[in-house]
Amino acid sequence: MSRRLYVHLLPTLFEPADLRGCVAVVIDLLRASTTIIQALAAGATAVVACQEVDEARRTAAKLGGSGPVLLGGERGGVQIEGFDLGNSPLEYTPDRVAGRTIVFTTTNGTRALRRCAAADTARVGALTNRRAVLDWLAGEERPVHLVCAGTNGRITAEDCLCAGAFARELTDVARSHTLANDDAQNAADLFRANSATTASLLAAMRNSRGGRNLTALGYGADIEAAARRDLFEIVPEYDPRSGRIVAAER
Amino acid sequence: MSRRLYVHLLPTLFEPADLRGCVAVVIDLLRASTTIIQALAAGATAVVACQEVDEARRTAAKLGGSGPVLLGGERGGVQIEGFDLGNSPLEYTPDRVAGRTIVFTTTNGTRALRRCAAADTARVGALTNRRAVLDWLAGEERPVHLVCAGTNGRITAEDCLCAGAFARELTDVARSHTLANDDAQNAADLFRANSATTASLLAAMRNSRGGRNLTALGYGADIEAAARRDLFEIVPEYDPRSGRIVAAER
Repeated sequence: MSRRLYVHLLPTLFEPADLRGCVAVVIDLLRASTTIIQALAAGATAVVACQEVDEARRTAAKLGGSGPVLLGGERGGVQIEGFDLGNSPLEYTPDRVAGRTIVFTTTNGTRALRRCAAADTARVGALTNRRAVLDWLAGEERPVHLVCAGTNGRITAEDCLCAGAFARELTDVARSHTLANDDAQNAADLFRANSATTASLLAAMRNSRGGRNLTALGYGADIEAAARRDLFEIVPEYDPRSGRIVAAER
Repeated sequence: MSRRLYVHLLPTLFEPADLRGCVAVVIDLLRASTTIIQALAAGATAVVACQEVDEARRTAAKLGGSGPVLLGGERGGVQIEGFDLGNSPLEYTPDRVAGRTIVFTTTNGTRALRRCAAADTARVGALTNRRAVLDWLAGEERPVHLVCAGTNGRITAEDCLCAGAFARELTDVARSHTLANDDAQNAADLFRANSATTASLLAAMRNSRGGRNLTALGYGADIEAAARRDLFEIVPEYDPRSGRIVAAER
C-alpha cells in the first residue's frame, strides 16, 4: 500500500487543517532552508524562526542579548542592519555559530513553517539534506506534504525543483509513495525536465526568480552551495509553539 | 525587443490591476475553454459567462426564455438540472447551438475570466485554437498574461500544460517573447516534459486531476477532444461588462 505525497507550490495553496495527522517538509531552497540546515550542521544549538525584524530583535533580547545568541536573516536578500549574520549559508561556519542560538528572520520561510503548525511534524528540506529527508520519509507511514515557500506569494521555480527532486525519488525510484495532487505531478515533471545533469539543475536554479535576484545581489556562490546534494544528515525539526528549529534525530 | 509573457498557474496568483495595459488568455482546458471555443465554432452567437446557477437562470430569462437562448454548464462535472446542455464540447454541435446564445455557468472558468476584467483584452485559449491564439499574440505588442483557471483554487496540470504549449512556442520557437515569471518557466518546462508525442500529452491530461475526474464521470472522450490541436481559427473575446464571449475577428 503506497503512501500519499502532496506538493504545494505555495503555502497558501492548502488549508492548514489539511495537515493534521500528516508530516510536512518546508522548502525555501534559496536560501532559508539551505541556511538553516547549514547553521545546525555547523553546530548551532537552535534556529528560532521569526516573521518580523522587530520580533527577531525582541526574541534575541529575551533569549540573552548578545551572549550566546546571534541575529540572522535578510530583507530583500540583504543582511539586516545591526544583525550578526545575513541569509547566506556560507556565513554560517562552525566558528561563527557553534553552540549559539540563531534568532533568524526570513519572511517566506517563516510564513511557510507557521502554516504547517497543524502537522504532526514539520521539518526543513533542501538539496543539501536531500538523502536524509528521503531516508526519514521512507520510514513514515503518514501522508507527506512538501510545502514550497515561494517568494512574496509567488511560485518560485527553485522550490518547485527541490520538491520535485523529493517527489521523483519517492514515487518513481523508491515507489513507496504516490503523487496525490497535480502540484506533485507538476513538481516531479519539472525536476525531470531540468535534472538531466547537475549543470542543468544549477542552470535552472540560476535562471529562477530567486536565482536571478541572488546573482544580481552578488550572492551567486550561494546558488552553487544550495545546489549541492546530500551534504548533511540532519533534517531540522520545527516546533510551532516556540518557533525553535533543532537538528532532531531521525 | 522581445515582449514579456507571464503565466499564472491560478487566477489568484496575480493582482487584477497587474493586467492593465496587457492582454490576457484564460485557459480552462478541461473543459470550459474547449467548450466555449467549440460552441462559437459551431455557430453560437455568443456565450454569456455566469458564475452562479441562479445568475445563469436569471440571465437566460432576461435574454428571452427558451427561444434562441440555451442554458449550458455544469456543477461537479455534471449537467445542471433543467439546463439544455452540460459542459461537454461534444454536445455543442451546429444543429444544437448555431444562431443561439448560450448562457453558460462554470465556476472556475468564469472566475478566471472575471479576474481579467482590467486587461485591455481577455480571450479564451485552449489546444483546439492553439495556432489561432499564437497568430494573434504574434501581432501583439502588449505584455501577455496566460491565466490558468485551476479547479476550486487548486492548480491543475492540464491548464499548466496548455499554458506551457503557448509559452514554449512564443519563447523557444518564435522567440518573439521572453518568459517573465517563474510560472511561465515552469509551464514551459512542464510542456516540454510531457509533449514528446501526442500520446504523452494526452496521457498527462488523462492523469491530471481534471482528467481523472472526467474519466470517472464517463467523459473520457472529452479529454481526447480537448487534446486536439489547431482545429479552429477563432479566439473568443470576453467583455467583462456584459459577460458576453464572442468569436472576435483576429
